[in-house]
Amino acid sequence: MLFSKSFIYTLREDPKVAECLSHKYLLKGCFLHMVSSGIYSYLPLGLRVLDKINKIIQKHMNKSGAQQLLMSALQPMDIWKKTGRDKDLEEVMFKFKDRKDKELCLGPTHEELVTELARKYVRSYKQLPFILYQIQAKYRDEPRPRLGLMRSCEFIMKDAYSFDIDQQGLDENYAKMLTAYKAIFKECGVDFVVTEADSGVMGGDVSHEFMVGSEIGEDVLFCCQGCNKFFKQGKECPECKGSLTQQKMIEIGHIFKLGTKYSSVLDASVLDKEGKRKPIVMGCYGIGVSRLFPSIIEVNHDDKGIVWPKSVSPYDVSLVTLGGVAFDDAAQITHVLENSGIDVLFDDRDIAAGVKFNDAYLVGNPYILIMGKNYSKNNKIDIEVRKTEEKLSLSKEELANFFKKEYNI
Amino acid sequence: MLFSKSFIYTLREDPKVAECLSHKYLLKGCFLHMVSSGIYSYLPLGLRVLDKINKIIQKHMNKSGAQQLLMSALQPMDIWKKTGRDKDLEEVMFKFKDRKDKELCLGPTHEELVTELARKYVRSYKQLPFILYQIQAKYRDEPRPRLGLMRSCEFIMKDAYSFDIDQQGLDENYAKMLTAYKAIFKECGVDFVVTEADSGVMGGDVSHEFMVGSEIGEDVLFCCQGCNKFFKQGKECPECKGSLTQQKMIEIGHIFKLGTKYSSVLDASVLDKEGKRKPIVMGCYGIGVSRLFPSIIEVNHDDKGIVWPKSVSPYDVSLVTLGGVAFDDAAQITHVLENSGIDVLFDDRDIAAGVKFNDAYLVGNPYILIMGKNYSKNNKIDIEVRKTEEKLSLSKEELANFFKKEYNI
Repeated sequence: MLFSKSFIYTLREDPKVAECLSHKYLLKGCFLHMVSSGIYSYLPLGLRVLDKINKIIQKHMNKSGAQQLLMSALQPMDIWKKTGRDKDLEEVMFKFKDRKDKELCLGPTHEELVTELARKYVRSYKQLPFILYQIQAKYRDEPRPRLGLMRSCEFIMKDAYSFDIDQQGLDENYAKMLTAYKAIFKECGVDFVVTEADSGVMGGDVSHEFMVGSEIGEDVLFCCQGCNKFFKQGKECPECKGSLTQQKMIEIGHIFKLGTKYSSVLDASVLDKEGKRKPIVMGCYGIGVSRLFPSIIEVNHDDKGIVWPKSVSPYDVSLVTLGGVAFDDAAQITHVLENSGIDVLFDDRDIAAGVKFNDAYLVGNPYILIMGKNYSKNNKIDIEVRKTEEKLSLSKEELANFFKKEYNI
Repeated sequence: MLFSKSFIYTLREDPKVAECLSHKYLLKGCFLHMVSSGIYSYLPLGLRVLDKINKIIQKHMNKSGAQQLLMSALQPMDIWKKTGRDKDLEEVMFKFKDRKDKELCLGPTHEELVTELARKYVRSYKQLPFILYQIQAKYRDEPRPRLGLMRSCEFIMKDAYSFDIDQQGLDENYAKMLTAYKAIFKECGVDFVVTEADSGVMGGDVSHEFMVGSEIGEDVLFCCQGCNKFFKQGKECPECKGSLTQQKMIEIGHIFKLGTKYSSVLDASVLDKEGKRKPIVMGCYGIGVSRLFPSIIEVNHDDKGIVWPKSVSPYDVSLVTLGGVAFDDAAQITHVLENSGIDVLFDDRDIAAGVKFNDAYLVGNPYILIMGKNYSKNNKIDIEVRKTEEKLSLSKEELANFFKKEYNI
């Protein structure tokens, strides 16, 4: 991609609305456009990252055997009245009537709708177990939208639902999801903690939260200064007796053993081996995709901008030309790299070196290639590795091999 | 994919709510679940098709140089008041207030929002031209939702917007989009007609519609019995003098030369070469993705079910085992095919042959492989090509080559 043709227009000043580091960098780097308080559009650069996160999620969910679907965002209110959650979630639901006076809402979550699906299509224990999931916009009329994507009114969730004949099946699917979630967050480049949590409005009796340590987090854990383990509360570590200090955390995932809370009320049942009718045993598993997105930034940045993990960076490489290096030379390097599967953002603009570097840092690709003096004199391309700040000088021939090694291709 | 593990539960009876053939087959074949009148969820089988259509669209849009983004579905009403389209679209907009009494709507289209983006980020003619597009759910409070996905309240659109310094630039981008659209519809397997059309509520003075002939269409063209060309009206062909007969058409795409209708009102302007301020010249380009989906079915089916074009079928192959052919033998064939990039839906269920065939026809994959008597006796796998009704018998060795040829892999 040529920078001159891209829709990347970084801001010179820190945006005044930015309430935290990820929010600032997302707006400043042209990843995100604020439509209104709590409402955001993903600009082309932001969508590239979002797509990569979604593909990682899909890979691990599909590997676990889960099947993707796409439920409607519009939901009839009558189904919420059956479970009584119209009351529980009344405050945060966007509700309205269609022209025939039918009450609708924008789904803040999809337990009711997916249980209806099971009710309609599943009759026998032989159809169990299965897991369905989707990646979709969800809606909450937030009392106080804040921190950019962290707490917004339109947000993207990956929500999954498991269906089993009994508790043992649920335990197995729950374990599968726990494994998939760990793999997803790890591949996205965030250090996370898993803790047992309160099930709240979802119901059920067991739930786990996935959290990332960050000063902007709204949850709190207690971290042991000795063994670095996390606990819900306390002053002293029950394992190594080290002292605990408070650590703010961002919740990026939450999984629940729902049991039969929804299936019994909505009559989603199957006949078991003995021909006896039984409510389906369910679990639900959420990832706040549009919260994971800025969380990655909160833990992967430096003073100059975002330092994207390789797995989710918008491009693999920013290529910067300086001081009269020919367009054709840089275009050829771009061509060679792209042919071996490396995405290059080639800054071909006729502007000051400082602006180019500034933008390369704000875009945050993991590698910056520089074709300048060292290229004109010695035919060497300089590389800056953002994460390690390592600097290398390689010949054209060495370059492709370097990236093949870095990306295992 | 093993059929026994899939979320495919076909209906035995024709669903009563089905108003046309595509609607019937989508519900019966477990592609789609009706949540409520005009509101649908895509089940795993339907989402596979939707994803393939979207990938075709993305391929051709990206090739044209357009850049994908994702705007919010929630839109503040104030921006609609500026263009006056709050009145034009009042009837079909879902409108509501958030808890702070701010008026919001669910976007029925995105001209206003994308023009705001241009206003914010684009200052100079040097930043032009560019094209932005998205694939996203849109919303209309339909007076009469009908024909399944054809006219629904929540639907998926691919909407693109071009930005140019002058009319000549717009003409060039418009031509690019016309070319991309033709390639998209062709690859999706629909015969289409392009006609000059009325710009209506979108504004601008030139627009073209892409239409597919079908008895359920809501638009009408006149088709020449002689040269098979289409016209907006008339009794006699102006070109070959053949007689014209009425043909109902489904609109699947519509492109508009908007000019400066939105940019001048919303103040999206740039400085030109002479430093003079000029409103950006815009075009907009829509594909009704969730209308294209059933249109493909309307023109690709037989009495037994959908006959998906190879480009958008949920799987490439349905594999049916009959009369005691071993699971392992079929699993091995599946493995070989999948290794060469062919997606196989292997019907491993222990049920009657008739049910298996019935489901294979309803799912509509372009090839049905049968491992039955001919396999047990002669080691031959029978193939039924849905579209041509051709039948073949091939050895294991011939099979992989057959598909490599059919899919150019």
